[in-house]
Amino acid sequence: MKEQFYQYIQNLQDEITLALEAVDSKATFQQDLWERPEGGGGRTRVIENGNVIEKGGVNISAVHGPLPKTMQAYFKVEDVDFFACGLSLVIHPKNPMAPTVHANWRYFEMYNKDGEVVDQWFGGGQDLTPYYLFDEDAIHFHQTCKTACDKHDPEFYPLYKKKCDAYFHNAHRGEARGLGGLFFDYCKETSERTIEQWYDFVTEVGNSFTSAYVPILEKRKDLPYTQEQRDWQEIRRGRYVEFNLVHDKGTLFGLKTNGRIESILMSLPPHVQWVYDHRPEEGSEEAKLLAVLKEPKDWL
Amino acid sequence: MKEQFYQYIQNLQDEITLALEAVDSKATFQQDLWERPEGGGGRTRVIENGNVIEKGGVNISAVHGPLPKTMQAYFKVEDVDFFACGLSLVIHPKNPMAPTVHANWRYFEMYNKDGEVVDQWFGGGQDLTPYYLFDEDAIHFHQTCKTACDKHDPEFYPLYKKKCDAYFHNAHRGEARGLGGLFFDYCKETSERTIEQWYDFVTEVGNSFTSAYVPILEKRKDLPYTQEQRDWQEIRRGRYVEFNLVHDKGTLFGLKTNGRIESILMSLPPHVQWVYDHRPEEGSEEAKLLAVLKEPKDWL
Repeated sequence: MKEQFYQYIQNLQDEITLALEAVDSKATFQQDLWERPEGGGGRTRVIENGNVIEKGGVNISAVHGPLPKTMQAYFKVEDVDFFACGLSLVIHPKNPMAPTVHANWRYFEMYNKDGEVVDQWFGGGQDLTPYYLFDEDAIHFHQTCKTACDKHDPEFYPLYKKKCDAYFHNAHRGEARGLGGLFFDYCKETSERTIEQWYDFVTEVGNSFTSAYVPILEKRKDLPYTQEQRDWQEIRRGRYVEFNLVHDKGTLFGLKTNGRIESILMSLPPHVQWVYDHRPEEGSEEAKLLAVLKEPKDWL
Repeated sequence: MKEQFYQYIQNLQDEITLALEAVDSKATFQQDLWERPEGGGGRTRVIENGNVIEKGGVNISAVHGPLPKTMQAYFKVEDVDFFACGLSLVIHPKNPMAPTVHANWRYFEMYNKDGEVVDQWFGGGQDLTPYYLFDEDAIHFHQTCKTACDKHDPEFYPLYKKKCDAYFHNAHRGEARGLGGLFFDYCKETSERTIEQWYDFVTEVGNSFTSAYVPILEKRKDLPYTQEQRDWQEIRRGRYVEFNLVHDKGTLFGLKTNGRIESILMSLPPHVQWVYDHRPEEGSEEAKLLAVLKEPKDWL
């Protein structure tokens, strides 16, 4: 399974970076290969200062070795070996009318001292963070998520949509990071579903990413905008930073387990503002977005 | 003691905001009074878009009530009441040649069920975060710290300078946040030093702040700079955000104990950049700063 999934995310990284370069038509992804001293490594691809994409990364990694102490405590296991691989992406478009997107698909294995697999699971998801609300974009993104889910289980979309809203929540602000999408974790073999069936589900979601996001980016990338709208985007990007540095388990894990800092923090937006006690005008487009972030909505 | 110290920080807030307004000569501090639902409140003063200060806050608060659960776990106590008051300030100048500064002085009391004080201590410090290195500024700041310390104990400056370097450390970057200064905590009554003597020490440091920082700000606020130097300042401000959101105990405490978010996060800089894998040219002024941040220096 680990070879099969790692092969899959390598191909998916190629597909997604090609699709995004085609939309941008100016900047290309720059690749960095890196090695983890304790075992494994990754292929980081970052794009900056494009026509359309101000900053983005589509990264894969496959790491292995003894499970670090901090992760032993987290998973409540002792002294085991692990393998983890995944693809993580964040795209920050320049135009404030175009939403930021994040996605991640990952696979995890743990081994006992004889090298036997004692646990294995998939996790991942994808979610949309706009600066201005276009209902049709939210509906398109969620519909694409639902279509992928429904091929596997009609209960998946409502369940993983809800988990996504719960996870990407800036608790200290009492607001969602964005409009959500899907979030799933610890997808393990059961009597109802084999690990191969989970693989089919996770790759179905991975395959849906481009058609979930690229049409939205195409539609919004050339809309006119004002400096005030750009400022609003940069202020909202500040909330993105707050979520990733204060609440995001993936980011904090990476920082505390000696991950490659530049690959982990490629998720942070290029230009960001913090304005004291900023509040949008009542009835404005900005206030409309905030209202939806305060109270996650069922888009479908 | 609590009335005495709270009176002191109220006066100090007036003194410091007046001194900074005089340097800025355009913007003035805007005041927000706030109340904490569980008891107490604060007086937040924020300045933005000045001639000299791009963003800054000089805040006081005095809060009390049952010690929140998260803090009970931290202090390893159960079910006690507390009182805490302090002044916190962060100043982000516009000019990249002028350093950011942070300071905090605080007093804490804990009570048993009969309302008797069972524990009390002072804490605080002040530290400097430049974007370009002027040795004379670092020396002036540290000398002012040392002069204040030496009036109380010749061991204080070396001890609290070292604690400051250890605390303001961006572990995930392997670099200091800035050039340090002083950091002290749990300053409690002992056979050698009464709580009144600690009060004298902490207020000595508080009184030294203006003469530690304002002359540096005066000297650097009108130096010419390029767009590239401004970009470097904004990139380094990103490290400031990383420290405050990932490592700073005060910030995380505030976020997790239902503090007033806008008063806590006033510390975040106004304009910030994250550039993938940014590295200054060898031998440049930017590289000179990084070298000092990698290896804290004895300035005196």
